[in-house]
Amino acid sequence: MRGGIDLGGTKIQAVVVDGRSKVLGEHRTPTPKDAGAEGVVWALAEALRAAAGAAGVEPSALDGVGVGSPGTVDADAGTVANARNVVSSWEAPVPVGASLADELGTAVHLGHDVRVGTMAEFRLGAGKPYRSVLGVFWGTGVGGGLVLNGRAWTGRHAAGEIGHMVIRRGGARCPCGRIGCMEAYAGRLAMEREARRRHKDGNKTKLFDIMRDRDRTQLTSGVWARALERGDDMAKELIERAIEALGAGVASACNLLDVEAVIIGGGLGTRLGEDYARRIEKAMRPHVFVDNPPAVHVAALGDLGGAIGAALLIPAASSRAGSAARGS
Amino acid sequence: MRGGIDLGGTKIQAVVVDGRSKVLGEHRTPTPKDAGAEGVVWALAEALRAAAGAAGVEPSALDGVGVGSPGTVDADAGTVANARNVVSSWEAPVPVGASLADELGTAVHLGHDVRVGTMAEFRLGAGKPYRSVLGVFWGTGVGGGLVLNGRAWTGRHAAGEIGHMVIRRGGARCPCGRIGCMEAYAGRLAMEREARRRHKDGNKTKLFDIMRDRDRTQLTSGVWARALERGDDMAKELIERAIEALGAGVASACNLLDVEAVIIGGGLGTRLGEDYARRIEKAMRPHVFVDNPPAVHVAALGDLGGAIGAALLIPAASSRAGSAARGS
Repeated sequence: MRGGIDLGGTKIQAVVVDGRSKVLGEHRTPTPKDAGAEGVVWALAEALRAAAGAAGVEPSALDGVGVGSPGTVDADAGTVANARNVVSSWEAPVPVGASLADELGTAVHLGHDVRVGTMAEFRLGAGKPYRSVLGVFWGTGVGGGLVLNGRAWTGRHAAGEIGHMVIRRGGARCPCGRIGCMEAYAGRLAMEREARRRHKDGNKTKLFDIMRDRDRTQLTSGVWARALERGDDMAKELIERAIEALGAGVASACNLLDVEAVIIGGGLGTRLGEDYARRIEKAMRPHVFVDNPPAVHVAALGDLGGAIGAALLIPAASSRAGSAARGS
Repeated sequence: MRGGIDLGGTKIQAVVVDGRSKVLGEHRTPTPKDAGAEGVVWALAEALRAAAGAAGVEPSALDGVGVGSPGTVDADAGTVANARNVVSSWEAPVPVGASLADELGTAVHLGHDVRVGTMAEFRLGAGKPYRSVLGVFWGTGVGGGLVLNGRAWTGRHAAGEIGHMVIRRGGARCPCGRIGCMEAYAGRLAMEREARRRHKDGNKTKLFDIMRDRDRTQLTSGVWARALERGDDMAKELIERAIEALGAGVASACNLLDVEAVIIGGGLGTRLGEDYARRIEKAMRPHVFVDNPPAVHVAALGDLGGAIGAALLIPAASSRAGSAARGS
């Protein structure tokens, strides 16, 4: 059995899976925001213990625990740096791997969250029929993962920054500070800033009412989805703007790489689901140069995909089947 | 010994090289425009015969001849389709491989011109120190070639269309018909159309005088270079516009792939050379997301790179029978 943890800006999802990636136990907890990186490491351990408890196993009996993390992940050193989405003060490298291994009494492997999620979809989810896929994680930001000819392509460690492909020179400022990035239009954080700006300028929207009704302080994916269901014009406009940006950026990536399939995941991607994946596919169409457009799928593993993918970071023990089966 | 032919829209360049890719003989001839695809195949054979003559070898004694071609190249079938840059009527697949093999009495292998040029730079030119490179061929259009971890990445045969990455949604129309492609700003054909439009609108430029002085009917790379040397404002503006577009598009590709190096080739790229490669590098900077920007080099093999690269399509084994493309 292996453990997997998906560290996100709002939640921590832990799973314990068997050799075929079947989930035996899981636990979800909010990401602690007020106790620094140490508090996050502690919460990771707690979440994994709870998932292990649900699976009826001691953490120390696991073959290992994989962690998918945002920020700058150095898998060899076992550190995570620049994870400001998680804790605003998290800049210097934190030895998440060693600390968590101490806490849990088993090996810990770190991976980049989006790559881990892409590999999970490739091996177990919507990417199973293909050899080359582009994962597009449409959430707070827009992250990308690449599997080319069956293997993760990571460049010199930093590949996949599809959100910072330029789709409009001289356009909107991105939360990253640059101009015209796809994420400046399609990232949830950028969309929220634009919504707040438009709201402040006197434009009507139900977005912030829905946010308050749900006891949120941010426009979560659920808030956007509800506003769309209620026909809110600003939500519709900003989502349409995001989809147009995604269409241009994802088509650009496909023109460059000619992958077989695009898999749309992330908070907004999975929450909005199939209809919006079709709209992204349609928005890609005017920009797709290759004769044979890629298939476009919604991520199939849903909320647990990141954690299940993180567990894939742990090499399969020799006593277990090497080939993973579809998660149920 | 191997032969290599670079088929371009304006010229055909043939070489004969030894096993270490040293050029033993070469010949260049204008691409015939008035005799259809058949006339082009005939000219390819003539050019190769002349290069072989210069090398003191019979074509039939070569291990084979590689051809780098624009358009849709089906290497397995030995055909080229949609090569309208070469001959305006060239749409349906033409059996270039079999016809040329018959003419020359040796095996012929076809490849996509930009990929062939990228592989040549990777193995023999500016890309030699690296394992992953992006070739950017800045000429009539803007083509791209990818070598990832030492191997050409071709996707499902159509990868590398960097010129049709979107850098300005809602922007200029590309010669391909789409909107906002990098090539709409940076391709020589698009730049010429824009220059003609501005000239017609009454804007002054020396571009067309230089073109006529040189007995050209198009704004060739040489015409652009001369106009820049003479400080022509329109030429400077349109080249600056092209460089800004290249900066955004190439940076986007690097954000996605995190390659080690970018190699700038093509008619304009090699003609304008080092200073302009530095300007492209500078234009990339505001858009490069990865911490470690790629190296940017001018293609080192110059005008012969395409033909030398085409010769690399022929396996080194000297025992190859000369019938691979015959009777297919």
